[in-house]
Amino acid sequence: MSRAQAGPGFRLDELARQLAVEHVGDGGVVVRQVASLGSAGPGDIAFVVDGKRRAELGRTAASAVIVPPAERDATALPRLVAANPYACYARVAALLNPPEVFAPGAHPTAVVHPSARVAASASVGPHAVVGADAELGEDVVVMAGTSVGARVRIGAGSRLHPRVVVYPGCTLGARVVVHSGAVIGADGFGMADDGGRWIKIPQIGSVVIGDDVEIGACTTIDRGSLDDTVIEDGAKLDNQIQIGHNCRIGAHTAIAGCAGLAGSVRVGRHCRIGGAAMISGHIDIADGVTISGGTVISGSIDQPGVYTGVFPARPHREWTRNAAQVGHLRELVRRVRDLEHRQAGKGE
Amino acid sequence: MSRAQAGPGFRLDELARQLAVEHVGDGGVVVRQVASLGSAGPGDIAFVVDGKRRAELGRTAASAVIVPPAERDATALPRLVAANPYACYARVAALLNPPEVFAPGAHPTAVVHPSARVAASASVGPHAVVGADAELGEDVVVMAGTSVGARVRIGAGSRLHPRVVVYPGCTLGARVVVHSGAVIGADGFGMADDGGRWIKIPQIGSVVIGDDVEIGACTTIDRGSLDDTVIEDGAKLDNQIQIGHNCRIGAHTAIAGCAGLAGSVRVGRHCRIGGAAMISGHIDIADGVTISGGTVISGSIDQPGVYTGVFPARPHREWTRNAAQVGHLRELVRRVRDLEHRQAGKGE
Amino acid sequence: MSRAQAGPGFRLDELARQLAVEHVGDGGVVVRQVASLGSAGPGDIAFVVDGKRRAELGRTAASAVIVPPAERDATALPRLVAANPYACYARVAALLNPPEVFAPGAHPTAVVHPSARVAASASVGPHAVVGADAELGEDVVVMAGTSVGARVRIGAGSRLHPRVVVYPGCTLGARVVVHSGAVIGADGFGMADDGGRWIKIPQIGSVVIGDDVEIGACTTIDRGSLDDTVIEDGAKLDNQIQIGHNCRIGAHTAIAGCAGLAGSVRVGRHCRIGGAAMISGHIDIADGVTISGGTVISGSIDQPGVYTGVFPARPHREWTRNAAQVGHLRELVRRVRDLEHRQAGKGE
Repeated sequence: MSRAQAGPGFRLDELARQLAVEHVGDGGVVVRQVASLGSAGPGDIAFVVDGKRRAELGRTAASAVIVPPAERDATALPRLVAANPYACYARVAALLNPPEVFAPGAHPTAVVHPSARVAASASVGPHAVVGADAELGEDVVVMAGTSVGARVRIGAGSRLHPRVVVYPGCTLGARVVVHSGAVIGADGFGMADDGGRWIKIPQIGSVVIGDDVEIGACTTIDRGSLDDTVIEDGAKLDNQIQIGHNCRIGAHTAIAGCAGLAGSVRVGRHCRIGGAAMISGHIDIADGVTISGGTVISGSIDQPGVYTGVFPARPHREWTRNAAQVGHLRELVRRVRDLEHRQAGKGE
Repeated sequence: MSRAQAGPGFRLDELARQLAVEHVGDGGVVVRQVASLGSAGPGDIAFVVDGKRRAELGRTAASAVIVPPAERDATALPRLVAANPYACYARVAALLNPPEVFAPGAHPTAVVHPSARVAASASVGPHAVVGADAELGEDVVVMAGTSVGARVRIGAGSRLHPRVVVYPGCTLGARVVVHSGAVIGADGFGMADDGGRWIKIPQIGSVVIGDDVEIGACTTIDRGSLDDTVIEDGAKLDNQIQIGHNCRIGAHTAIAGCAGLAGSVRVGRHCRIGGAAMISGHIDIADGVTISGGTVISGSIDQPGVYTGVFPARPHREWTRNAAQVGHLRELVRRVRDLEHRQAGKGE
Repeated sequence: MSRAQAGPGFRLDELARQLAVEHVGDGGVVVRQVASLGSAGPGDIAFVVDGKRRAELGRTAASAVIVPPAERDATALPRLVAANPYACYARVAALLNPPEVFAPGAHPTAVVHPSARVAASASVGPHAVVGADAELGEDVVVMAGTSVGARVRIGAGSRLHPRVVVYPGCTLGARVVVHSGAVIGADGFGMADDGGRWIKIPQIGSVVIGDDVEIGACTTIDRGSLDDTVIEDGAKLDNQIQIGHNCRIGAHTAIAGCAGLAGSVRVGRHCRIGGAAMISGHIDIADGVTISGGTVISGSIDQPGVYTGVFPARPHREWTRNAAQVGHLRELVRRVRDLEHRQAGKGE
């Protein structure tokens, strides 16, 4: 186990104060790290979201726990009482594990164009490149080997991990996190068929990313062909996602790894797109839609709800015997109809 | 909207001359950027491919339009008349948005091996690396942080965006574009099972890429195990595509994002492979085949046409009720056969 | 053909000695490269695994071949006789194609933190970055532009190709190979829903990779949320694979390209996961399981065997006619049951 080293920690009453939640029991207990109920030890704080894990709660060696109001008295441990214990846990974890601090200024090996406007508090790592007329806001961190193209604007507090590429002209909001290998603003896949040969269509739109967006490792977001590709505030994209040109991802939508969106897809707000889901081009997805992992979406969805299109895998022989029949389904339906007609005829 | 800034533009008659198409109306009107009919304003040129959008054509604020011969008189705007308006539009867009110009020579932070042969007009960006005996042709651009391995040859006019990796010994033709994060020539996935342990098989083939190929962001093309992996002239590969060792992609074939080809797949010329389509190993795909997005191809295809294998997603509860029956299809077919036999028996 | 250049080669009897297998015929013949039966020429060694290719074996121009004991006398060519000819071939190929040798020491453009412990025999390439307190074992090669985070430990003989990123605190065993674009240790996709907004949960676990693991180009392995993500000894991961936080991949398991594992998946030892297979979160896969390419696994598998869930693609029109019926399967089953009941009633 190479869990991140814990810092000096916080007193429980101090956590309660900072997070504006109630604490019960010894407010002076110091917690240094988050943990699961089962693995927690002294100095750790764990959580439960409801009453289902009372037995584990009774056995935990944690120094403190986070519980919902209904479980206020389910333990004698020092505790925070929060309406949303998981969200409270996330905030506690963030306080106990602050992001790494980077020294302001550009590393001597970084190549920053003289026309770039870099805030004094921003940090530019070894071998990073910042292009002409780029703007880096306060506390922005551009880590080792990341390439920030010309005219890119990055809002305050954003962090680009090592080896990210942002193509020229893209815009990132505040507090955006981009993981290594992500590529923002590469050309969309636009071309015209000219008698069997492809003519590239210059992609003259850009990518505009809102505030508080997170973009996973090796995720690619293409620039727009004419208009922009847009990722709205608070959207969260996992690793290896492909976002085609001119897509718009609504605010606070979460997309799991390996999902792919072809061009001009509009996904609403507060959607959840499962891993490896694939959405065809020019499709509209309403607000509040959940798409199951691995599902292919080839038509627009105008109602919230859960949508699915995958089959549970089976032992190979059993699967292939049944799957082969799908190719004869229409014929089977006809045979059943014939049977029904003939039976109906005899019934008279 | 952060659309690319327009340059000084072209007179319409000058565009017509350069593209060898007819112009009608005021040839002196200057167009500076392409746009859609709906968003176009003064200085913009838009296009229609047929007569379906005549109402929009009547309302557009574009300074000029591109129309097919059949729509020659459907507008009073200054216009180009082209047999293939979309291809004409692509060419106009390219003239109005020329690729960025890079200063020739190597950036002081680039590491170029003394034995590499770099054309005087080629540009090598900051922190790029060019290995021993590599060759960069005229006007080649190797952008920031890209790694060009030993003995790699890159033809005239090719452009490698930031943070591309080309492994040793690979060959790229002329006018190839490679987007950030792409990896060309990593080892194919070849190994022998030796009593439950895997022994790596050195991948001694290479990757050979023809002229006018485009390779998307984070796409990976593995080197061959014995022979080469080959991408023929004019093929276009979108982002996050995986091409296994010893594949051959035919000329002018287009592959959309997230598609995957296992080893030794041969795809014909002028094919269109949809996004997230997956092709099993050792499969041959004929010329002119279209594969729908998300489709799994597990057998060779010897006839042109469109091939599909995905199900439209449905609301979750409805889907699961029906999908579960697929596991009983063979049994259902048997039951229908029994009914038919018994009904036939009674009919006599 | 740009096949890797062959070295001075080995005498057949020397190969036999080094690999501890029998040789038959002229032990003095020198082989310089491996090849397939069909393409082999003088200086090449080819192989057969059984008697199925005797005709080709009779025609081959190879200087030597590798055969199984049962085919010991099927050729007059100088030969190695090996119980597992393919594994023997892999070992011969490795002897004939040794990995590139890198000069020890750090390139002048590399940025190695003074607190890093780098073995004298290790090589750090141009523009590579090695963070504080990182450890590189003997003969480790960190190629151009690779980023090794703080506190990362890399065991002896491991090789990181250009532009790999290893986040802080991760551990790699001995003889690990990581291909370009791979990202190890980015944050897992963990967040809490707080009234429609996502709160990031710090990912405080790490990634622990065993010995003899190979990781393909642009593959991403996320760090654990609390505990570690673990890849056990001898596992082989192809390109563009996504491994979510807290997964554990068993020893000697092979995963083909584009596969995706959501969080907390446990895959057993000696499994084979096909390309583009997708495994949902919190699933356990037993030892010795094979999953077909493109299959979605949404439930745990506790028995070894082959599991499948994909449909063979068909010509588009035929497919859509049949696929549409899947949405009515439950209704069809009901109709068949009605027919059976009514027929049974009449039979009495």
